Amino acid sequence: MQEDVHRLGLAELKAAYAARSLDPLAATEAYLARIAAEDARLRSFITVAAEAARTAAEESRRRWRAGRPLGPLDGIPVAVKDNIEVAGLPCTAGTTAFRDRIPAEDAPVVARLRQAGAILLGKLNMDEGALGATGDNPVYGRCMNPLMPDYTPGGSSSGAGAAVAGGLCAAALGTDTMGSVRVPAAYCGVYGLKPTKGAIPGEGVVPLSFSLDCVGPLARSAAGLEIIASLLLEPLPRAFSTPVPSPSLSELRFGVPCQLDEVELTGEVRAAFNRFCDALRDAGATVAPVDLASWHPGKARRAGLLVSEAEGAAYYKARFGADLPGLSAAFASMLRYPEKAGVMRLVAAYETIETIRLDCLRAFADVDVLALPTTPQTSFPHASETPLNQADCTALANFVRGPAVSLPIPTEGALPAGMQLMAPPGDDRRLLRIAVAVDRALAARL
Amino acid sequence: MQEDVHRLGLAELKAAYAARSLDPLAATEAYLARIAAEDARLRSFITVAAEAARTAAEESRRRWRAGRPLGPLDGIPVAVKDNIEVAGLPCTAGTTAFRDRIPAEDAPVVARLRQAGAILLGKLNMDEGALGATGDNPVYGRCMNPLMPDYTPGGSSSGAGAAVAGGLCAAALGTDTMGSVRVPAAYCGVYGLKPTKGAIPGEGVVPLSFSLDCVGPLARSAAGLEIIASLLLEPLPRAFSTPVPSPSLSELRFGVPCQLDEVELTGEVRAAFNRFCDALRDAGATVAPVDLASWHPGKARRAGLLVSEAEGAAYYKARFGADLPGLSAAFASMLRYPEKAGVMRLVAAYETIETIRLDCLRAFADVDVLALPTTPQTSFPHASETPLNQADCTALANFVRGPAVSLPIPTEGALPAGMQLMAPPGDDRRLLRIAVAVDRALAARL
Repeated sequence: MQEDVHRLGLAELKAAYAARSLDPLAATEAYLARIAAEDARLRSFITVAAEAARTAAEESRRRWRAGRPLGPLDGIPVAVKDNIEVAGLPCTAGTTAFRDRIPAEDAPVVARLRQAGAILLGKLNMDEGALGATGDNPVYGRCMNPLMPDYTPGGSSSGAGAAVAGGLCAAALGTDTMGSVRVPAAYCGVYGLKPTKGAIPGEGVVPLSFSLDCVGPLARSAAGLEIIASLLLEPLPRAFSTPVPSPSLSELRFGVPCQLDEVELTGEVRAAFNRFCDALRDAGATVAPVDLASWHPGKARRAGLLVSEAEGAAYYKARFGADLPGLSAAFASMLRYPEKAGVMRLVAAYETIETIRLDCLRAFADVDVLALPTTPQTSFPHASETPLNQADCTALANFVRGPAVSLPIPTEGALPAGMQLMAPPGDDRRLLRIAVAVDRALAARL
Repeated sequence: MQEDVHRLGLAELKAAYAARSLDPLAATEAYLARIAAEDARLRSFITVAAEAARTAAEESRRRWRAGRPLGPLDGIPVAVKDNIEVAGLPCTAGTTAFRDRIPAEDAPVVARLRQAGAILLGKLNMDEGALGATGDNPVYGRCMNPLMPDYTPGGSSSGAGAAVAGGLCAAALGTDTMGSVRVPAAYCGVYGLKPTKGAIPGEGVVPLSFSLDCVGPLARSAAGLEIIASLLLEPLPRAFSTPVPSPSLSELRFGVPCQLDEVELTGEVRAAFNRFCDALRDAGATVAPVDLASWHPGKARRAGLLVSEAEGAAYYKARFGADLPGLSAAFASMLRYPEKAGVMRLVAAYETIETIRLDCLRAFADVDVLALPTTPQTSFPHASETPLNQADCTALANFVRGPAVSLPIPTEGALPAGMQLMAPPGDDRRLLRIAVAVDRALAARL
């Protein structure tokens, strides 16, 4: 049993605790052993909080033994991206500038995890300042994809993808500005949610872009993703908080944006996406094209990047001054760009995003969910050139401000591809239910 | 009968047509006569389309005579703000620069009105470029409040407020960037809706701010507002399109932002708002304070203004060049300001707005509706100084992107005040139903 702990999903861990075939301290020790054995290679952690984790695990064990666990996350070993504040642990945001930044309080998302009894194993590696998508951190090491030596786990929540996929934690929190939860989920073959903007508390996080950033969870199954997301999601406006019935795929309409043709998908991802759509149809769903006339993926991604850089610059310049000391030359140069580009180009970028948002909301009048690949390619070697289009398909959900789930499916090659489901803002709980149903249908068919 | 046509609401006009006590041509002639008699004083129209209106009214009369009207708007005389395109009529946006701009096609909102049989009387006066709130247009004349000589109707949909209140059209379309539908509705004692951003088509409109602009209707009753708004609202995302039951006020929770204390309300408006809240409580509703911690109304309004100016500048500079020929010196100077302010101040303004948006969405988890005055004061003489805080209470709904209705109530003085109800984005139809119920409760109590 013990040697398979790192493969268990959230519901399975809970069941094992309930059945007393495993306890939270033993599970935590198993994960800490995995980290000790594997992370010199994976570089998924920046900080490991072994002693605090053991103490929390003992408390959880007492609750389970007393038959009074705090809920489905009690005793679950998790880790969080290093731009999310945990009291007493460094919060580097992947940059030297914040190397000695030690917050006194937990971010609200971390506090919720702790209150639910989750065991915090440590803080996860990331692209510097959350701007990037390969996990090649210049200070804290090159994070690796556990599925293939020397391949990227994606980013910017690189350590979150690598640690969940590699069995170094059972679930993780990342952040997602243009795809930073979903890209590593796709490359590492796990599940990730970018929630509705504001639906998961964003306080206590080193920001990149106040308008696009979201905190989002990653897990090894659709069911696990739903369990951890349910804890983190804010209550919704009363008008929308009617309970969502479990969806039947045969009643759902999936839209595939025509403009996906403008994204250079690899043959492997294209084939996987076609099989994904076929499987949805086999399961009784309607899959239909939708026209997002204003969405030109490349132009849109560049607009999102300019906005992220401008909003990131506002944050870092206010803290460090215009010279941006402590930031790598590459990161600082990106943050300096918007002031060179000027007010009118920045306004044009915001307009591109707003126009796409309205187009997309209109599309949701006709379809329940948008379906598209998460990334145009599967993971690639760190040593090869980084494709520019990694966020072409993911940034769309950040622009719309709505939720998106990435779920993995096999390709004809050695690595998995991510498939993405997007729903209207506020529809997070419904989307998670749909993702579970889709995942089940895929498992039966692929 | 004929002399009272201009006092009838939308439902009453329809009933009169159905009963054959009035026909659309006679109603149109009555309105055209009102315009001829009153508008030299009110200056609410920039263009009157009398002949086209008569032709359309004859067609509507034929449909009514044949017992086949197109719906509740068939034969209703309406007018639209002069930044909304009507095929063949000048669309000046209140500026000399567009004096000779004659679009070939109707804006989608105008097309919908026509397809529903509405009679288009003409185009309405406005603040230049929709940036302002007094209706003192430097080119097309100083628009007057029909309730009090030489007083402002508010703006920027000045002609819409004045024409609806003065009985020069039965309903009107305005546009609202920070309050431009609701401020004139409040000052002129009529009803106005700012919809969810994107919920009423915004194409075919000369923009000011792509992120804040909305087209919205004005009418002389809450029921009339609901009738015209229902025609204009887009279908909603499927998840939200379940039918909304008629609300009972006793099941509703109204939130009053604590931060209203930072707005300098006149004693008259403060007293009216208190009576409004008392009447809601009398009707069985819960009225409770809510904390919008990030909302500092003055700072927020200035952020909205900078964003509006920057986004407006992008539009006008792209069309006319950086020198902005044909714009008044005052308007051009406002549009030039953001480039002087620079990228970082603009980003800070966008951040102020986004932070307020998220705070407000969170508040809607606890309350169904936010209640606040529409404007801090009632209408004032054109000759007196313009208060800076006119949009303090209205801009909030533009920031949130959700719907807001302004409804009039009497004050202790000679002029009415506007009371505002705000709901979460997408909740437009429910809010309109609530406004009708609130209006009925107020009529019984005030």
